[in-house]
Amino acid sequence: MAIPYPHFIATEKAAMDAGLLHPSSSPSVIFTQDDLKKIAAYKAVEYVESGMVLGLGTGSTAKHAVERIGELLRQGKLKDIVGIPTSKMTHEQALSLGIPLSDLDSHPVVDLAIDGADEVDPFLNLVKGRGGSLLREKMVESACKKFIVIVDESKLVNYVGGSGLAMPVEVIPFCWRFSAERLRKLFQEAGCVAKLRTFGEKEEPFVTDNGNFIVDLYFERSIGDLKAASDAILQLAGVVEHGMFLDMATTVIVAGELGLTVKNK
Amino acid sequence: MAIPYPHFIATEKAAMDAGLLHPSSSPSVIFTQDDLKKIAAYKAVEYVESGMVLGLGTGSTAKHAVERIGELLRQGKLKDIVGIPTSKMTHEQALSLGIPLSDLDSHPVVDLAIDGADEVDPFLNLVKGRGGSLLREKMVESACKKFIVIVDESKLVNYVGGSGLAMPVEVIPFCWRFSAERLRKLFQEAGCVAKLRTFGEKEEPFVTDNGNFIVDLYFERSIGDLKAASDAILQLAGVVEHGMFLDMATTVIVAGELGLTVKNK
Repeated sequence: MAIPYPHFIATEKAAMDAGLLHPSSSPSVIFTQDDLKKIAAYKAVEYVESGMVLGLGTGSTAKHAVERIGELLRQGKLKDIVGIPTSKMTHEQALSLGIPLSDLDSHPVVDLAIDGADEVDPFLNLVKGRGGSLLREKMVESACKKFIVIVDESKLVNYVGGSGLAMPVEVIPFCWRFSAERLRKLFQEAGCVAKLRTFGEKEEPFVTDNGNFIVDLYFERSIGDLKAASDAILQLAGVVEHGMFLDMATTVIVAGELGLTVKNK
Repeated sequence: MAIPYPHFIATEKAAMDAGLLHPSSSPSVIFTQDDLKKIAAYKAVEYVESGMVLGLGTGSTAKHAVERIGELLRQGKLKDIVGIPTSKMTHEQALSLGIPLSDLDSHPVVDLAIDGADEVDPFLNLVKGRGGSLLREKMVESACKKFIVIVDESKLVNYVGGSGLAMPVEVIPFCWRFSAERLRKLFQEAGCVAKLRTFGEKEEPFVTDNGNFIVDLYFERSIGDLKAASDAILQLAGVVEHGMFLDMATTVIVAGELGLTVKNK
């Protein structure tokens, strides 16, 4: 993926901050997908101000943002940050970087959250949770004044589920097969397939931070009205939460071949 | 509470089955609240037929029904029953009575469930879960063709929450204070108070069968549109389920001073 340097002007500062571009770089620079994630993450951290309560996202893109926040704290360029991690994994990462941490019980209002997403539709609705931590993310990000989503352009879809990849639903372990079958039936018309998320050779059920299982839903076609779909999923006893983040993102930063795009709600 | 025998004619058979009335009884018999629960439970079990998949409820009223089902199986008056318990407690009770058990994964369609309730409103909407097992109950009872609710008349209310007692909400332990506060705010206009359910002298959080906590909501006034309230509660990330069972009961059997009342949907 060759990125012609002149077209990349919007990304220049973030890419330089990320150590991916130097003033002496040749006019064509090749970025990997991880580079793009890092560039988007660094761009998002430009929105962070000293004194903020920050929601710290989880996953391969968000981890770059957490890293960058740690770096700016160490450099003294940011001060008095309180981080609210969205998973045990991010909690560990932020601890190791010396970011002061708290939780929603102590800080029920979050100034800004930065997190990745698995899908972003044209209305800035998201699918999240392929990494497995959708519930805590949703709790933190629904308590935010501003929620910046950072993705590489491969995450843009025409409709939720449009990537053909999973829309995860967190369910209680008790009778998960029953819940999975009810979920499948709910979206039968969209050609839904429901699969328990497993890990390892023995295909053990994946267990979330909250002790629950995840049923991944795959859709052949659009599921239509997302608000109605959300309510129908949540009305199933046995479902804890789903990975659609509707009407929550206030800004989406997309890093792509031709630079950064910032979409605002 | 003296119950004049002649007025109690509708209850007569169930009361006799329950061993609470004898043909030789004096015309005035005094029933305790537990007697009334037992009479309602025995009446409900009259609806059970051999070969049925049965949802077995939880609590001080439902336990009489489970007991009676065990008795009829032992006597050979019922055969080929499969019980689906709604809690670990009922699982133990049914096991000890020799009732063959299964679960929703193997039997996703339940012919009939019998369970108690904490409140019943005029439209047969219920509040359940003061005993702590609302989630599994709701899973089983939402999979039922028929759902018979058994209560003594003290459980009848004019509106959900009208008893002044708790409407329980199951939440994940993570940041439960945050969830409790959001729940309280949701029903601020109804004068809502939200309290974590605790047990013992040390006031440890009560933990459900699914490893979650319970936030009990108390309302000073009616919360209005129950369907809207249900959706609003379920939309809060961190909430797993609530104790309103809307439009689920098909029959409610009420045992009171003047006999049994059977209300059908």
